[in-house]
Amino acid sequence: MRVQGEAYRTIWPRADGAAATIIDQTKLPHAFVTTDLGTCADAEHAIRAMLVRGAPLIGATAAFGVWLAMRRDASDTALDEAHRLLLAARPTAVNLRWALADMAATLGPLAPSARADAALARAVALADEDAAINAAIGDHGLAVFRERWRAKGERGPLNVLTHCNAGWLATVDWGTALAPIYKAFDAGMPVHVWVDETRPRNQGAALTAWELLNHGVPHHVVVDNAGGHLMRRGQVDLCITGTDRTTAKGDVCNKIGTYLKAVAAADTGVPFYVALPSPTIDWTLDDGDDIPIEERAAEEVTRVTGRTDGGALATVALTPAGSPAANPAFDVTPARLVTGLVTERGVCPASTEGLAALFADRAA
Amino acid sequence: MRVQGEAYRTIWPRADGAAATIIDQTKLPHAFVTTDLGTCADAEHAIRAMLVRGAPLIGATAAFGVWLAMRRDASDTALDEAHRLLLAARPTAVNLRWALADMAATLGPLAPSARADAALARAVALADEDAAINAAIGDHGLAVFRERWRAKGERGPLNVLTHCNAGWLATVDWGTALAPIYKAFDAGMPVHVWVDETRPRNQGAALTAWELLNHGVPHHVVVDNAGGHLMRRGQVDLCITGTDRTTAKGDVCNKIGTYLKAVAAADTGVPFYVALPSPTIDWTLDDGDDIPIEERAAEEVTRVTGRTDGGALATVALTPAGSPAANPAFDVTPARLVTGLVTERGVCPASTEGLAALFADRAA
Repeated sequence: MRVQGEAYRTIWPRADGAAATIIDQTKLPHAFVTTDLGTCADAEHAIRAMLVRGAPLIGATAAFGVWLAMRRDASDTALDEAHRLLLAARPTAVNLRWALADMAATLGPLAPSARADAALARAVALADEDAAINAAIGDHGLAVFRERWRAKGERGPLNVLTHCNAGWLATVDWGTALAPIYKAFDAGMPVHVWVDETRPRNQGAALTAWELLNHGVPHHVVVDNAGGHLMRRGQVDLCITGTDRTTAKGDVCNKIGTYLKAVAAADTGVPFYVALPSPTIDWTLDDGDDIPIEERAAEEVTRVTGRTDGGALATVALTPAGSPAANPAFDVTPARLVTGLVTERGVCPASTEGLAALFADRAA
Repeated sequence: MRVQGEAYRTIWPRADGAAATIIDQTKLPHAFVTTDLGTCADAEHAIRAMLVRGAPLIGATAAFGVWLAMRRDASDTALDEAHRLLLAARPTAVNLRWALADMAATLGPLAPSARADAALARAVALADEDAAINAAIGDHGLAVFRERWRAKGERGPLNVLTHCNAGWLATVDWGTALAPIYKAFDAGMPVHVWVDETRPRNQGAALTAWELLNHGVPHHVVVDNAGGHLMRRGQVDLCITGTDRTTAKGDVCNKIGTYLKAVAAADTGVPFYVALPSPTIDWTLDDGDDIPIEERAAEEVTRVTGRTDGGALATVALTPAGSPAANPAFDVTPARLVTGLVTERGVCPASTEGLAALFADRAA
């Protein structure tokens, strides 16, 4: 998508073929900095230190990391070592494991002399596949947006509320929940986005706002408390979020606070959609309440980092010293509150039957 | 309530009778500072610059401000001037208008020589009346807490979720929503409070947490996104909030985000109570959706102030420069989502009939 008028992805091979280039997302939204990854160790660091984030982008970065390793030493030992190093960077990331397994299966059978070129080709292909999946989610979501737009008589902006960042920065391109928004904007629909701040890590205020600002999409940042009020007053035409994990019956595990917006949407008659690439569906799990919820550090709640008027980053405490905080990172939105799941194959009801109809080849 | 082991109110006449003393709430939660108001102009500044906040405390401060004026000059002109000056400090505050009208009615008929002593006596009485109303709300709320506590078999803590700050800092003593919490804690019930951060002004993270910490009440600060998840997982036994304005049929206008917690409580079967002194009931209004919602400055959303590790206060930007923000300050929770209204006369259903039964002498 666009940054300062230029088209970007989140990762790409440098034109001279000597590095992969990424956007250093730890600098966002206050500075736009790209960084070259020249070695596998650079890629490992980018993943571990969260210069890149979002499951699909982590997977793509690992694939490019294997390529960078093969450029230096394409032996079996070096291939194994790159795999081991990169996998340990974010041990719980499913896409990371999957991308590394793909690279190992592609490169293992080849002669070492053929591995570097094959690794680059495969890493580029994996990145292209992710962009294509998200573009397809965007197209299917666009059809939903068009229907809502017609239903409101094509008058005024189409007001879309989103939570957290399920945008192109979390993927290779397009994003998931934001893909239909970009498709709609690029198609000339007057879309306007309510961007939930998304405490405690502020991915909405920082990343979603930055994406929309740079692509030129009209938006307002709002605190997480505001969405219910906006829905009650008719200022939201639909909600769309991403998901970290979706169960076989359509329960959605996503960033903390998603459930509150879904239950308010149901109470006010606002459609609530969830966008997802099908690999994030957990076909082995039915009930979302069986998903353990990660409890993260209290400091994410009690402290916040931002830019001072002087331009430096500073971290400030928001709570009195001595007050403890709790920090559940995700919540579960029951399928009954989800109007539809927007996947790369189309839109389906959030139900066992809905998902099975779209994914008959994959469902258990 | 207690601060560093000592009992405090938010305003009191200094022992030597030469000033009224307040807690400078602009310094909270990072420093506890009391300030003497020696003149009517000091009182006016304390109201205008929000050293004191909360409708009941603003009213009490104005009453003490009239006393401070009368100590210097008890003429009719001085009385009128004090009234005019104090009323302009926060022109929309209903309690301010009401307290000043009370002081004028009390002092106007008296000889100037009697006014200073009478003003002090009346200001103290108004402060005592506010404390008594809130203590009564606390007692009635305590009965609700005891019932929930029995219903859960008196096992584990009684988990109470609250939003914003409806505590003693907003009143003369006890607070409204927090009054039953203090009553329960003082009675030995093992109460534990989930404190909503309450973006954008963070009154929960700053003021409610500070109150509970100093009184010794177990609590955890959570982001506003977390409450729905806690309710779904059975970790909230009841919610209780304050209200800025309640309609004759029980619709509740309160800090932005209150509705989201109420709709989640209804979805999960958690009782949702609202505590209020009856003067905040607007008997002339039925439908909460007729209340205009104040839109406050975008900077409250895009910037936040806290304490650096060095101890200084600093303000940092959270959003990219150029992204606009919207900031509705309140929302309306329909009566159907409110389990009960906790008033100084008792607890009633949030309905025309419920309120009329308790306030037959006041309802239209």
